[in-house]
Amino acid sequence: SLNQMEKFEVVEISKEVPEIKIIEAEDYAGKLVELRGKVTHVKITGGPTIFTILDEGGIITAAAFEGGERAYPEVNASDIVKIIGIVKRRDADLQIEVLEMERLLGEEAYAISKRIEDEIDKKCEPPYVEFLIESDILENLRDKMVKVAKELRKAVFESRPVIIRHHWDADGICSGVALEKSLLSFIEKNASSEMKHLIKRKVSRAPFYELEDVVKDLDESLEDSEKFGDKIPLVVLVDNGSGVEDIPAIEQFLTFGADIITIDHHFPDEKVDSYLLHHINPYKVGGDSNYTAGILCTELSRMIDEVPGIEFLAAVSVFGDRSSGAVEKYIELVGVSREELVNTALAIEFEAFYLRFRSASQVIHEILGFGRKDRQKKLVDILSGYAKSGIEEQVRTVMEGLKLQTLPNGVVLAAIDVENYAKRFTFPPPGKLTGEVHDRLKNEYNRLVTIGYGPDFAIIRSEGVELDIPKFVAELREEINAGVDGGGHLVVGSIKFIPAKRKDVLSKLAAKISSL
Amino acid sequence: SLNQMEKFEVVEISKEVPEIKIIEAEDYAGKLVELRGKVTHVKITGGPTIFTILDEGGIITAAAFEGGERAYPEVNASDIVKIIGIVKRRDADLQIEVLEMERLLGEEAYAISKRIEDEIDKKCEPPYVEFLIESDILENLRDKMVKVAKELRKAVFESRPVIIRHHWDADGICSGVALEKSLLSFIEKNASSEMKHLIKRKVSRAPFYELEDVVKDLDESLEDSEKFGDKIPLVVLVDNGSGVEDIPAIEQFLTFGADIITIDHHFPDEKVDSYLLHHINPYKVGGDSNYTAGILCTELSRMIDEVPGIEFLAAVSVFGDRSSGAVEKYIELVGVSREELVNTALAIEFEAFYLRFRSASQVIHEILGFGRKDRQKKLVDILSGYAKSGIEEQVRTVMEGLKLQTLPNGVVLAAIDVENYAKRFTFPPPGKLTGEVHDRLKNEYNRLVTIGYGPDFAIIRSEGVELDIPKFVAELREEINAGVDGGGHLVVGSIKFIPAKRKDVLSKLAAKISSL
Amino acid sequence: SLNQMEKFEVVEISKEVPEIKIIEAEDYAGKLVELRGKVTHVKITGGPTIFTILDEGGIITAAAFEGGERAYPEVNASDIVKIIGIVKRRDADLQIEVLEMERLLGEEAYAISKRIEDEIDKKCEPPYVEFLIESDILENLRDKMVKVAKELRKAVFESRPVIIRHHWDADGICSGVALEKSLLSFIEKNASSEMKHLIKRKVSRAPFYELEDVVKDLDESLEDSEKFGDKIPLVVLVDNGSGVEDIPAIEQFLTFGADIITIDHHFPDEKVDSYLLHHINPYKVGGDSNYTAGILCTELSRMIDEVPGIEFLAAVSVFGDRSSGAVEKYIELVGVSREELVNTALAIEFEAFYLRFRSASQVIHEILGFGRKDRQKKLVDILSGYAKSGIEEQVRTVMEGLKLQTLPNGVVLAAIDVENYAKRFTFPPPGKLTGEVHDRLKNEYNRLVTIGYGPDFAIIRSEGVELDIPKFVAELREEINAGVDGGGHLVVGSIKFIPAKRKDVLSKLAAKISSL
Repeated sequence: SLNQMEKFEVVEISKEVPEIKIIEAEDYAGKLVELRGKVTHVKITGGPTIFTILDEGGIITAAAFEGGERAYPEVNASDIVKIIGIVKRRDADLQIEVLEMERLLGEEAYAISKRIEDEIDKKCEPPYVEFLIESDILENLRDKMVKVAKELRKAVFESRPVIIRHHWDADGICSGVALEKSLLSFIEKNASSEMKHLIKRKVSRAPFYELEDVVKDLDESLEDSEKFGDKIPLVVLVDNGSGVEDIPAIEQFLTFGADIITIDHHFPDEKVDSYLLHHINPYKVGGDSNYTAGILCTELSRMIDEVPGIEFLAAVSVFGDRSSGAVEKYIELVGVSREELVNTALAIEFEAFYLRFRSASQVIHEILGFGRKDRQKKLVDILSGYAKSGIEEQVRTVMEGLKLQTLPNGVVLAAIDVENYAKRFTFPPPGKLTGEVHDRLKNEYNRLVTIGYGPDFAIIRSEGVELDIPKFVAELREEINAGVDGGGHLVVGSIKFIPAKRKDVLSKLAAKISSL
Repeated sequence: SLNQMEKFEVVEISKEVPEIKIIEAEDYAGKLVELRGKVTHVKITGGPTIFTILDEGGIITAAAFEGGERAYPEVNASDIVKIIGIVKRRDADLQIEVLEMERLLGEEAYAISKRIEDEIDKKCEPPYVEFLIESDILENLRDKMVKVAKELRKAVFESRPVIIRHHWDADGICSGVALEKSLLSFIEKNASSEMKHLIKRKVSRAPFYELEDVVKDLDESLEDSEKFGDKIPLVVLVDNGSGVEDIPAIEQFLTFGADIITIDHHFPDEKVDSYLLHHINPYKVGGDSNYTAGILCTELSRMIDEVPGIEFLAAVSVFGDRSSGAVEKYIELVGVSREELVNTALAIEFEAFYLRFRSASQVIHEILGFGRKDRQKKLVDILSGYAKSGIEEQVRTVMEGLKLQTLPNGVVLAAIDVENYAKRFTFPPPGKLTGEVHDRLKNEYNRLVTIGYGPDFAIIRSEGVELDIPKFVAELREEINAGVDGGGHLVVGSIKFIPAKRKDVLSKLAAKISSL
Repeated sequence: SLNQMEKFEVVEISKEVPEIKIIEAEDYAGKLVELRGKVTHVKITGGPTIFTILDEGGIITAAAFEGGERAYPEVNASDIVKIIGIVKRRDADLQIEVLEMERLLGEEAYAISKRIEDEIDKKCEPPYVEFLIESDILENLRDKMVKVAKELRKAVFESRPVIIRHHWDADGICSGVALEKSLLSFIEKNASSEMKHLIKRKVSRAPFYELEDVVKDLDESLEDSEKFGDKIPLVVLVDNGSGVEDIPAIEQFLTFGADIITIDHHFPDEKVDSYLLHHINPYKVGGDSNYTAGILCTELSRMIDEVPGIEFLAAVSVFGDRSSGAVEKYIELVGVSREELVNTALAIEFEAFYLRFRSASQVIHEILGFGRKDRQKKLVDILSGYAKSGIEEQVRTVMEGLKLQTLPNGVVLAAIDVENYAKRFTFPPPGKLTGEVHDRLKNEYNRLVTIGYGPDFAIIRSEGVELDIPKFVAELREEINAGVDGGGHLVVGSIKFIPAKRKDVLSKLAAKISSL
């Protein structure tokens, strides 16, 4: 194998290399150029080391070959460098094949760095977009949204990983996908496709940022930081992230340098805000949970980048969370029957349930219309069909265990035992099953609270009653030594407790509902 | 780092390049050649892009270097191309180092494509092989087997992934390994070793193709399709795949373009056939479940490619599923004691149980004799020893809770509480434990049904009684609102129900057995 | 894409290449050299094939390019080779770019092999280090420790993977990290950084080497062996590995050629020793469990390589396992308050619990002081804060179910129902929760046994009583048909049984305690 030896031959590099800006690279394909910029990412591969370079006009990757090992070990993310290399075409992208790279220091580096920062800051400013519906609530949130959109665009320019952690239900998934799609589209236009893997959409099992989830995110981030020089991520909590239960996870990630943004429509706890970089929540501007996370993220995504078909996500989320009022205008926008939207929400939740919290973007994107349209229709039909028969089956058995009582104040309390009268690990899961039973019962009763209970949890749905579940939880914690916690929306939520005290907790809860 | 620059020097490629067929490549090692063929796969690596090329005589990979990025982005799977390159030796394989690749279109491409298709079709035709034992049942299945063998060989030539999903028990594993080994051997002789990773053997936890499994397979397939251009797989369901419970999973994968083949010896439900490309099942030709999936797959595998020692898998499967009758002739074939075969089946199930559904081919192949023979012996001894003492221990405790009653019709009904009288997550699992108790009891009782029950399931084994478990399940669904489902073989199976109705379900079941 | 063709040009390699030893490579950077050595590892990458070469003076990697495929397929681990190549600098390491490699055979190979072996044997001999505290127990263990340190150093020179399997608690983690850090440091000084990934620290969920863990380790080892030519590993069991329960796992791995070393401070069972290469245990030299695994591994790690701050691990382990006596001298060594050490132990266990048995070295190293010091402080504060409030909350609810009785012999027996009076999947887990309750109660009672029970297990803590839990387990197995097993330390342990016999087992246990 004499190949290697055969390669060597001395060639002089001409001093007459033109200095260009990244945006001009297109015109120099195949030519030798010089450019200056900021290193935002360094990726070590089996082949070349790939440096992502940012200047005031754009982003380009630069490949330096060093026999399968890290090239230019002295150059790291955040450094300012001068590069001499050849502009090559790589699939859709351009790339510099590096001949020489030099780290710049001192005044020259500072000036370049400052210039880039100023220009990038301008480029991150989102364009003005009209909201899809007229809404004072949304207008009140506009400033916050603009700030968040800017932050996310900046992450792209800075090659900073973005973790999107969202609830597993239809609203949460639509929200996460809206952000994911718009960020990927923004990368396509403004950065190297290399960076697409920095957008990480992940599903939360619980309705809050669990410790189990944060330690996994943290571990992966530190590993990527160690191995690839990745930055500590910008974390976006979607359809959760506004409760006290989120604080331990948030606090831990902050310690390692993450920034956290919450986009939620659950009733927020004030304590959380001091930990967050931004918090978008309709309750903060006079709105309520009818403004789904899916709506908020759809509108926000349009400030990041326009993606055809994105409004469909808002419409599906409205059905997913059974929202009503002004937000129903999203339904008209999409020109699709109500039935099809309901079916899509069902199909998404059915599939997500069996995906057991894998994000599975390909499958989910297909169901949500970002793949082949004929397949979308067929998939939604099949999956929603199975979802409906699954619901019918489980509702039928759980109704056998239904206990109905009319409380002194006229509220009807419906209790179902979702542990013994339903099948485990089978769609619909307890929360959704309780909701389905509640929907059937509320046709008969105006003032209704439905409780689906298991050995150590209770899920609460209500209609025509002014519940305040977070308040109930706080009171129960004082009144019974049962490890009560939980939360959710004001009128829809869940509580957990120790198994030994289930009876006490449920009867205290009934008493509270009785005195509303 | 001036290496890159130093490389460049213009060289003219001579016009006198010989045009060869892939099968002739061996004679041109180190030489510049031209060839035409169909791209069946494109793999992007950190180094070169690897194109798999098929012509009427064979398969070869072609490596195109493009500095760590996708080379020839305009060329995709299914395209017809002309390649100029150097034939290189890579380990056992040959490979073309691409200098020029051009996508052909129109009539020329069509003619080449047609010619390749015709030739490949011939090459996929399996050779005639005598079955290992004389059997009318097998002869009746021959036509089906030939078709399936041809389909699997074709997948190799077309670089189409094959997912083999099999039951986790000894029969299922032997079946899956038989197909895996013969496909790998066929690849070795007919294609590039690159393609070995397209054969994916996976273990099913449930005795049917679960939704949880299909969404994982689907997600991985779509990811591989997106990342590597992999085709949508050919799925082979082995030792399951013939029941109504399989339909939701099958239907979903079909929507994405998969083809599904079932090779099973469970009593088949007619509804499944309309979803399947092929269905091999002894019940369809007058046979029964004594023809294990391991036998069917061993015989089928011999039509794909001959693998030394493959008949051992059939013999082990006979003991794994306690089959009897004509199929016992497989035992004589292998020249190994019955005890050793029993021990191998036990060792496989013990190891598979603790592997918790990882396919772990290396370990499993060793136990089944495809590794070092001295180690096989030792491994089987150790593992079957632990398996036996595990069985003794669990049988001993579960017998404490045994309830025996003689039904009015003389059938003895044995009920064991496998939840409270056995240890969880410990070998043997409930199904196997019930079988072991049944085997001990049937020495004493001629007409016996053994039921191992937990909070929401019952496992049924029978002897000397004409059970029809699928019929029981159908009736119980009508008679009790308990979410009953399940199935299996006619006389060996399991049913699931909601915990609240366990007592009702079990007493109805006893009544049914009583009236046989 | 004519790049490839353009490269070729014939160059003659001069015959005047100097033959060097690996240790001299530094002086030949950029030069053509010849060297002879033993191949210890072959790694196939997307780019070059990387051969790890050992001679009597050192280790170096050699990269051979063969167009993305395995170069020199005839050369494998253990072969003696002659290499001609250019010495290149790669990051911190040197590497040979291979021009020619030839496998040597016969006498020449044997002589080189022997010479290397002898020299490496000398280099593996650990230096003499004084123990951090004066202790006869440790001195009695010195010989064993020297042997184990030598074995681990040898694994580095031989590119043999090392699996460190340790208990998930603070003591186990500190032990595992001590070995991990010193081996990584030894690699940094003596071998290529390539080899760092051969040190695999893994967390055991159970207090012994479970079958589930060993089959995973085995499967991964065989896969790595198949794919990368990795050797079968040296396995170090830490803070477990000395009980009969470990034998099935150990025996299985041995069959595949692994060697197993145990470093434990649990009361050892004699049967294990015949399976182990070495066994370090204070009970074998007149000590007891106060000599934590963390202490043993810290002292051992210092014979492998000195790592600044390593003594901190010993000190944390003392608090993690509540050790007392001579070993408290480790606390004084580190110059850190007792409170901070307690908090670190708590922080580690809290994080490990939510990591659910991922080893997550980056996060864990930060908490243990091998990262940024300011962050360590903050992390320990946050995590131990959450750990403490988690403990308070669970202790508060579990105390509701406390049953206290004074036995005839004056021993107070405290029983808590950790299944019904605590939350599942929540820190602290049952074992730690039982310990915390015990710690509170022992302030009031001199002679105390605390039992935390669930449906199929009981955790035992004791104070002022001469328990012998392994003996109890052996007796209970005889007396009740309940599948009893378990163990642990003499006075701290756990037992498992079938749910149906919980009452029997617990009352027999109480009777035994009563008759002490």
